[in-house]
Amino acid sequence: MDARRFAALSDPFPMWRGGVLHGGRIAYETWGTLNAARDNALLLFTGLSPPAHAASSGEDPADGWWQGMVGPKLAIDTERYFVICVNSLGSCFGSSGPASPDPATGNPYRLNFPDLSVEDIARGGHETVRSLGIERLDTVMGPSLGGMVVLAYAAMFPKGARRLVCISGTMAAAPFAIALRSIQREVITRDPDWKGGGYPPQRPPITGQRIARKLGTVTYRSAAEWQERFGRSPIRADMGSKDPFASEFAVQGYLESLAQRWVNVFDANCYLYLSRAMDRFDLAAHGDPVALLRGAALKAALVIGVQTDLLFSVTEQQAIAAALEAAGVPTRFAPLSCIEGHDAFLVDLKTFGAEIGGFLRAG
Amino acid sequence: MDARRFAALSDPFPMWRGGVLHGGRIAYETWGTLNAARDNALLLFTGLSPPAHAASSGEDPADGWWQGMVGPKLAIDTERYFVICVNSLGSCFGSSGPASPDPATGNPYRLNFPDLSVEDIARGGHETVRSLGIERLDTVMGPSLGGMVVLAYAAMFPKGARRLVCISGTMAAAPFAIALRSIQREVITRDPDWKGGGYPPQRPPITGQRIARKLGTVTYRSAAEWQERFGRSPIRADMGSKDPFASEFAVQGYLESLAQRWVNVFDANCYLYLSRAMDRFDLAAHGDPVALLRGAALKAALVIGVQTDLLFSVTEQQAIAAALEAAGVPTRFAPLSCIEGHDAFLVDLKTFGAEIGGFLRAG
Repeated sequence: MDARRFAALSDPFPMWRGGVLHGGRIAYETWGTLNAARDNALLLFTGLSPPAHAASSGEDPADGWWQGMVGPKLAIDTERYFVICVNSLGSCFGSSGPASPDPATGNPYRLNFPDLSVEDIARGGHETVRSLGIERLDTVMGPSLGGMVVLAYAAMFPKGARRLVCISGTMAAAPFAIALRSIQREVITRDPDWKGGGYPPQRPPITGQRIARKLGTVTYRSAAEWQERFGRSPIRADMGSKDPFASEFAVQGYLESLAQRWVNVFDANCYLYLSRAMDRFDLAAHGDPVALLRGAALKAALVIGVQTDLLFSVTEQQAIAAALEAAGVPTRFAPLSCIEGHDAFLVDLKTFGAEIGGFLRAG
Repeated sequence: MDARRFAALSDPFPMWRGGVLHGGRIAYETWGTLNAARDNALLLFTGLSPPAHAASSGEDPADGWWQGMVGPKLAIDTERYFVICVNSLGSCFGSSGPASPDPATGNPYRLNFPDLSVEDIARGGHETVRSLGIERLDTVMGPSLGGMVVLAYAAMFPKGARRLVCISGTMAAAPFAIALRSIQREVITRDPDWKGGGYPPQRPPITGQRIARKLGTVTYRSAAEWQERFGRSPIRADMGSKDPFASEFAVQGYLESLAQRWVNVFDANCYLYLSRAMDRFDLAAHGDPVALLRGAALKAALVIGVQTDLLFSVTEQQAIAAALEAAGVPTRFAPLSCIEGHDAFLVDLKTFGAEIGGFLRAG
């Protein structure tokens, strides 16, 4: 069962760093009902890897990536809001990206897909919203990569949303995060099976992808959480091997099982494009961030950060909140003490739900 | 110029996890003079990658890995102490390890080197000390891996030292650090050039080693430091390339240059052995840590940790200090606020020198 809809992008769709996309589309899902005034829409951007399926629905009862957060009477209350979640442009879950067919050739774009930026993801979401006849969003929201996208959205589409919720994002990719992401990309591009991006779909650079995902998992969590969760427990006997450097600890088995799952669903070139887009993001490329945020004419903002986040430090969240405040936007800044690191928004639904639900209800 | 001496290990040398080593040796350097009472010796273990050359000397004027810390009138004052720094057993700078010749065959041991443990590194240092006619050290000291080794030393050789200095070590490898190290090992063992450990010395698994080292560098530093140091500065023009995923930022150039340097000096199999030994270390395997530390009969201890250390958290340093206190050892615990992360002991010599010098002088 598939609850996705597709919005056709303008043709040509202008890419932020140059070049255009022809015949592009955005996959999205919706929950709730758009009211007659068309002013109760909430646009949700995702992190790097999820699809548009944020939560179950009648059309697709499978759990979504933010199951428990989006739904009737939940923090993002679908009885009140018309929620739209988009699969990012450049991803591989229905939106156009390096894995989708190039209309010019019928073959996958691969590295012929134009340079991708966070700004293009924002524009893809914006065109999706407009295709639904919505002039102004009630709220634009996103975690992680999505937290970058919402800032670009505010800068690029003044008055595009009344409110903004930025979760563990950043105004400009930090060198520490760039270092980690560039190592992940290098592991993939150095895998002989990557073949300069030209791997056949049935034979992707699995080793590189597995290792990149393991590193991703480490950067998404925290040392304190894993001490509690795994300690020094040994790996399950059935996951052992005779390799002298085989995994010995439960934490290694956990990394491996998540990596295996990811390799089978995410396209390597799409990952490379999205990862590089994150490194390149710098809101200041659009102008003075405070002036941009003032121009966005937001009525309120919520900025959430996590003290244990290694990848998008709480200092960066503080800077976002400070820029919003300086722009005259009434802003709640919530630096949370969750121990789950960057991924806390996916794990600690109670704490995040209270912040997000409280903010949305107050508006 | 080479200031190294070599201590022959007992033959057979019993390895902690089983097996023996024949014809083994430890490379070491010394500074200062052993006094007539033979009670002014300070044994220094290193982190994972340095050689025994901690500081310059008349015999080898090149800067050492702790240049500025070890020398006349410096924090580790070679006018007062007879300082011995050992190259860890299993390493590749003169001590026996996977890259050194197996006397049985004349070829490098490679993966035929017996299983290596932190305990073997401790015993290698202990035999070196005994070979110099020293019964009891004034101080045993080590950072990082060396901080694990000094704890093993105290447990294995009661009354082997009057004092102990443990810097950014741990009583038991934490799952977060295990995860990161196991990813580094996997990058190397998945490099086709590793050849199951059988690479010819002139053709090592350079790609895997480079990437492993880059990840190491990230884990040794901190996000706050790199924000200050690199921000979003672009990479030097001469380090760019036409590769679509080439490095674009200064921080990436920094990682690359350190990685290149390391690949040319460190043997991949030695790295794998030492890295795995760190994961496996657990002081509790010897018995109750408090009882062990009480049995060590230490007169004083200094435990230094760094708040921004991702790999050996300050919580782990706190636990070491607490165990020493519980064992009745007068202990100074110094949780430092340096922003350089795990590597702070190599960078912030002023702060570390004040702690170490103050402790040593007080004794």
